[in-house]
Amino acid sequence: MKAAVLRDVPGELTIEDVELAEPGPGEVLLKTAAAGLCHSDLHFMEGKFPTPTPAVLGHESAGVVEAVGPGVTYVQPGDHVITCLSVYCGNCEPCLTGHLSVCANKAETARGDDEAPRISQNGERIDQFLHMSSFGEHMLVHEHGVVKIRKDMPLDRAALIGCGVTTGLGAVFNTARVEVGSTVAVLGAGGIGLNAIQGARIAGARRIIAIDMVDTKLDIAKEFGATDVINASEDPVAQVHGLLGGGVDYSFECIGMKQTAEQSFNMLGQRGTATVVGMIPMGVNIELHGIMLMVQESKIQGSNMGSNRFRVDMPRYIDLYMQGRLKLDELVSARITLEEINAGFDAMKTGEVARSVIVFDD
Amino acid sequence: MKAAVLRDVPGELTIEDVELAEPGPGEVLLKTAAAGLCHSDLHFMEGKFPTPTPAVLGHESAGVVEAVGPGVTYVQPGDHVITCLSVYCGNCEPCLTGHLSVCANKAETARGDDEAPRISQNGERIDQFLHMSSFGEHMLVHEHGVVKIRKDMPLDRAALIGCGVTTGLGAVFNTARVEVGSTVAVLGAGGIGLNAIQGARIAGARRIIAIDMVDTKLDIAKEFGATDVINASEDPVAQVHGLLGGGVDYSFECIGMKQTAEQSFNMLGQRGTATVVGMIPMGVNIELHGIMLMVQESKIQGSNMGSNRFRVDMPRYIDLYMQGRLKLDELVSARITLEEINAGFDAMKTGEVARSVIVFDD
Repeated sequence: MKAAVLRDVPGELTIEDVELAEPGPGEVLLKTAAAGLCHSDLHFMEGKFPTPTPAVLGHESAGVVEAVGPGVTYVQPGDHVITCLSVYCGNCEPCLTGHLSVCANKAETARGDDEAPRISQNGERIDQFLHMSSFGEHMLVHEHGVVKIRKDMPLDRAALIGCGVTTGLGAVFNTARVEVGSTVAVLGAGGIGLNAIQGARIAGARRIIAIDMVDTKLDIAKEFGATDVINASEDPVAQVHGLLGGGVDYSFECIGMKQTAEQSFNMLGQRGTATVVGMIPMGVNIELHGIMLMVQESKIQGSNMGSNRFRVDMPRYIDLYMQGRLKLDELVSARITLEEINAGFDAMKTGEVARSVIVFDD
Repeated sequence: MKAAVLRDVPGELTIEDVELAEPGPGEVLLKTAAAGLCHSDLHFMEGKFPTPTPAVLGHESAGVVEAVGPGVTYVQPGDHVITCLSVYCGNCEPCLTGHLSVCANKAETARGDDEAPRISQNGERIDQFLHMSSFGEHMLVHEHGVVKIRKDMPLDRAALIGCGVTTGLGAVFNTARVEVGSTVAVLGAGGIGLNAIQGARIAGARRIIAIDMVDTKLDIAKEFGATDVINASEDPVAQVHGLLGGGVDYSFECIGMKQTAEQSFNMLGQRGTATVVGMIPMGVNIELHGIMLMVQESKIQGSNMGSNRFRVDMPRYIDLYMQGRLKLDELVSARITLEEINAGFDAMKTGEVARSVIVFDD
């Protein structure tokens, strides 16, 4: 099959012919239908986080089941599925208490690295990124890494639910549990931030403040439910306090930077909760005013992919979309071919696009 | 009346004759029965936090109502009460949602500084510390700063509930909401920490790790319910991980230092919650590994006096004490007179005492 391979970090992707293994126990072979380009992929390409090479990146996808390995009963050929990197074992303490996104046995469940390579080229191992590798015509995924979905759901928009949509919505619904009538600030109006914004709208927040450096993104944020927008080129903490006469109940950091993480804490009001959704680079500390914690009972927490229970959450999100209550069409800024993938990442760097989605041939 | 007056910061207290105003609208005149010496008083004496001088310190007390001002209906002369600095208005958003310790109108409720001085000496204003000033023979407190208690409760032990006990227990019960079977670490086995420890015991935590530099405090911690103790002279984060094979579900920072606040975060396991109970000095930042927030969904929050609803909480704690389930007798390391107050604070500095309590003459 054809796949986009990352050979050097930092580096671009090359379209190459690679081989996929047969589905083993618990595995599902998918024909990839669509795969979103996510900022996290770009972070790995740029070397902000370490990853083995050569590798096939991609982790936000939907597809159709072609075959299943021994023991798989959850899906059968022809089923439509969304993939999710929050593969779970179902047996550990986090899983058994409903916190599957922080499953303690994720790596073992998703097949260990000591096994035969899932992807290879002339006998050379190619890393299966996050046990998924969506930037290829086919995928091999553990059955605990897919959720079956209704067949009337368009697969290109379903793909987005696999990572960005679930991360943004889940941070609001599952991690922070935003309440009706509360005030919310979202730092970063990209793929994750727009979903935090529409999550806050769906959850009934009364003020939803979108914060970004790019005015065109703030315009899109309004369409997704922001009641107020702030250009962060001037101190966003002061601007939030100016708008509300105080801090917010909930803030969501959807960028992954020290500065914005600290701002998300500093813009809280009494008993406010900051939720860090972005991936802060390894080794970067964030600094908090200690006394603020105690005096106003501020809180800061992380959200691992929206604290998802994706087999429960994703079908719900699809129903909301089909009812017109969740915006997905507007998230797709471009439909591209696998061959256009590097141009897609270049467009992401300009900050002008919500999301490019690779659509594979039928 | 006699009171202990702070004239210089840093400085000791002097016993002087001062005058108390008549109870105004909403105020209650108390005969002070007992007042605990709290580390926070010492912090103010040492200048770690700013406070106006001259002032009468003290904020952990119990007494008997002698008179009430206009409009007071909650208590009448002869009632036994505990004072609490978490005075609340009862009308603001935090109050109306059950979060009275972060009442938005605390200062106004407790009488503004522009009014006639509640304490004076030959016409000179003396600051009423935290609108309370327990280190005097009488006190003038807003009725929303007292809770009526059963008369069979000894007032010297009741006094401790006014601050340290409620702060430690409330952090466990109200702020963190520790669950049965969870694992808990408490940093600092002083007046607050011992109560966090016994709170964790009452809440059914299965492992309760007390952490301190002083072995004699750790011995006391065991009596209060610690299942394990760690001397923090060697890296307590590594020791906690060694003991449990992982991090804790809940940690409580009961000291108020940058280092221990950071340790409380670093010793968390997946989805763990650090609760900062100690008063981190103004201007001191605490630094967190950003990626830990997201990867393991760690959380850090502050607790303002145990997130108390003290009129609800304190009578409950008294019942637990009367049933033998809450330790208070063991918290009183010395009963002293008002004249012995400086010696009491000196003893606190050595780290050898749980709590000195001033007992006033009948």
